[in-house]
Amino acid sequence: MASTPQPLTRASVLAAHERIKPYIHTTPLQTNTTLSTLASTPQAPEALVGTEWEGQEPAKPKFQLFFKCENFQRIGAFKVRGAFHAVGRLVDELGLDEVRRRGVVTQSSGNHAQALALAAKTFAIPAHIVMPSISTPSKIAGTQAQNATVYFSGSTAQEREAVGADVQAKTGAVLVPPYDHPDIMLGQGTMALEVQEQITALLGAEGGSLDALIAPCGGGGMLSGNAVALKGSGVRVFGAEPSFQGADDARRGVAAGERITTVKTLTIADGLRTNLGPHTWSIISDAAYVAGLYAVTEANIRDAMRLVLERMKCVVEPSAVVGLATILYNEEFRKRVEREAGERGWNVAVVFSGGNTTVEAIGKIFADADSDAAGEAGKERAEGKIGMDGKRVAENVAG
Amino acid sequence: MASTPQPLTRASVLAAHERIKPYIHTTPLQTNTTLSTLASTPQAPEALVGTEWEGQEPAKPKFQLFFKCENFQRIGAFKVRGAFHAVGRLVDELGLDEVRRRGVVTQSSGNHAQALALAAKTFAIPAHIVMPSISTPSKIAGTQAQNATVYFSGSTAQEREAVGADVQAKTGAVLVPPYDHPDIMLGQGTMALEVQEQITALLGAEGGSLDALIAPCGGGGMLSGNAVALKGSGVRVFGAEPSFQGADDARRGVAAGERITTVKTLTIADGLRTNLGPHTWSIISDAAYVAGLYAVTEANIRDAMRLVLERMKCVVEPSAVVGLATILYNEEFRKRVEREAGERGWNVAVVFSGGNTTVEAIGKIFADADSDAAGEAGKERAEGKIGMDGKRVAENVAG
Repeated sequence: MASTPQPLTRASVLAAHERIKPYIHTTPLQTNTTLSTLASTPQAPEALVGTEWEGQEPAKPKFQLFFKCENFQRIGAFKVRGAFHAVGRLVDELGLDEVRRRGVVTQSSGNHAQALALAAKTFAIPAHIVMPSISTPSKIAGTQAQNATVYFSGSTAQEREAVGADVQAKTGAVLVPPYDHPDIMLGQGTMALEVQEQITALLGAEGGSLDALIAPCGGGGMLSGNAVALKGSGVRVFGAEPSFQGADDARRGVAAGERITTVKTLTIADGLRTNLGPHTWSIISDAAYVAGLYAVTEANIRDAMRLVLERMKCVVEPSAVVGLATILYNEEFRKRVEREAGERGWNVAVVFSGGNTTVEAIGKIFADADSDAAGEAGKERAEGKIGMDGKRVAENVAG
Repeated sequence: MASTPQPLTRASVLAAHERIKPYIHTTPLQTNTTLSTLASTPQAPEALVGTEWEGQEPAKPKFQLFFKCENFQRIGAFKVRGAFHAVGRLVDELGLDEVRRRGVVTQSSGNHAQALALAAKTFAIPAHIVMPSISTPSKIAGTQAQNATVYFSGSTAQEREAVGADVQAKTGAVLVPPYDHPDIMLGQGTMALEVQEQITALLGAEGGSLDALIAPCGGGGMLSGNAVALKGSGVRVFGAEPSFQGADDARRGVAAGERITTVKTLTIADGLRTNLGPHTWSIISDAAYVAGLYAVTEANIRDAMRLVLERMKCVVEPSAVVGLATILYNEEFRKRVEREAGERGWNVAVVFSGGNTTVEAIGKIFADADSDAAGEAGKERAEGKIGMDGKRVAENVAG
């Protein structure tokens, strides 16, 4: 990576945005009356049975939601922002000829692999991607189709790193990590600038403004980038994680005052299985940047994903909806919004981070859900039998 | 229904649009580079094996596609256009008090039921909806949530009509049929006016214009309405149907010169299981209105649906993609476009008629597809292993 990283400031995010604008889509900021209304309706007491909030009075927060649809981004996820920024900075530092001679390398089975391959191809830079050999064929084909050279490894971090080190040694390729680097963080944070412009266009005339942004947190590159972009703006930034098998390492780490350095989880939110790195921790653990971290269950994620697919008619991957799931189902967050936002409520930007899933994966997620009670309860709720008013049940699309 | 139907002219469609505008969404007209590129790439010879075009040289048509996203319409489908128009006209003719006294009635298990219920509720008119008792619970709940009274019947047309007649006799409610009535046809045709305005905004500055529109054809209300709206405009109008179990009654009827009056099919495109009625036949069988009708297989529909969900990140129901499936996979249509459009190609509006499906239904459609060879071939093609170039494989979202 570039040897002199930019300072983690809004000015650096603005510079990153100017740099990457020609290569990325300005993704839409969408509203949806159905989902805003649902978020602004107290959960039914039955929905809290079996949760830590059982028996409590359901919170009554008010929300206007604005969905930042990075599922419509190039390669289907926000990762191109950081990849184009990191590659562009590398070219500035080393010169294009040198970067082309050396190439770039990363280890990823997911969206970062395709994002880096696309950014490298755009500048005719060789890309070396280490992927676990068990990766889905479509992801391998997609990465190879960007002219990247794919190397296969075992699926543990050690096995991948060994192959990666070998590739680096043989080719001299420069490592572009998936999240824990300032250039990546600053690139991902550019979406917050677009959100601010889009909110002003939507609400500015009537004096409305953004109160909060909530984003998924895996390695933390995107959440921390958004937090850097919005620091001092008055917009509160929240992070959302899955709770399954301890995937909520950021929340737990911040609560304990120490970064959690290993996580082993098979949450369906497969983009969020990693833990924070040192760089992302430094931002996310600082309350001046991130106002709070919240976790949701697998059933919450499925329920939110169902609503987005069936009501908003929008394809998202499970990782993309943890922010919405927090807004809909996490009573701690909902009580906080009721308390802090009051009757006026908050205008909240909700980051949909990506949409890279398959019809088979969608089928499997909900087939699995049908075999457990939590899923059933969620299905009932999503179908409008629990805690929903007539308008919401009936209007599949009201945005 | 209103006793003096409007003449089937563009002027009537314009009047219908003015009437319903306050109650409907102007749905987006979306482009997608991936799908336009795929449509403009010849099919692989292997893809034609087992079809009537086996051994022929694949066609080389050129397309720019513009998707009219009625899946984002209120209640998730175009049906609200016709329903608001029909109810509005009824109020003009009989007076609001009289319509409120009598109510409206229809027989439908699908999108028309929710559409009529919403239109009636908007004017505080009682709605009586006859649904087969085997309808999915979410559709029943959705219709009831619009304050409609739901009556259950057996699932044959006769059983439904018997219950419907009984409801009419008891309540005096006015029948609002799902498709075979001028007021319904004119209402559905309003989408063509929006498409023309949107195309002008997108292409007008560079002198581009719309060459064709392709729409699904079930009962034919929407296809005929669009054809009426576009007659004399120079825009060719095409209809698309499923071929499964003879669902392509319009195509077969026009070929034979006589309307087919019964169809019994279980195509996955469940919104297209009905045959044309006398009113829709009069337009659709007239080459001055509809330039051609084409049919696609169940596998074609699944393949197209996969592409829209996985690449465009957009949720559509199977019925919605028969137009796109025709463009991608019907060699007769593709050869015609190659011949008539030449090297310049055509700008084609593709109607996505609705998005009312569930995650379970999506899972089932592709689980079923995996168990037959045609589905597998389609899956391979959709995953980019057959007949796709690097750009298309790699860019999940390029629109």
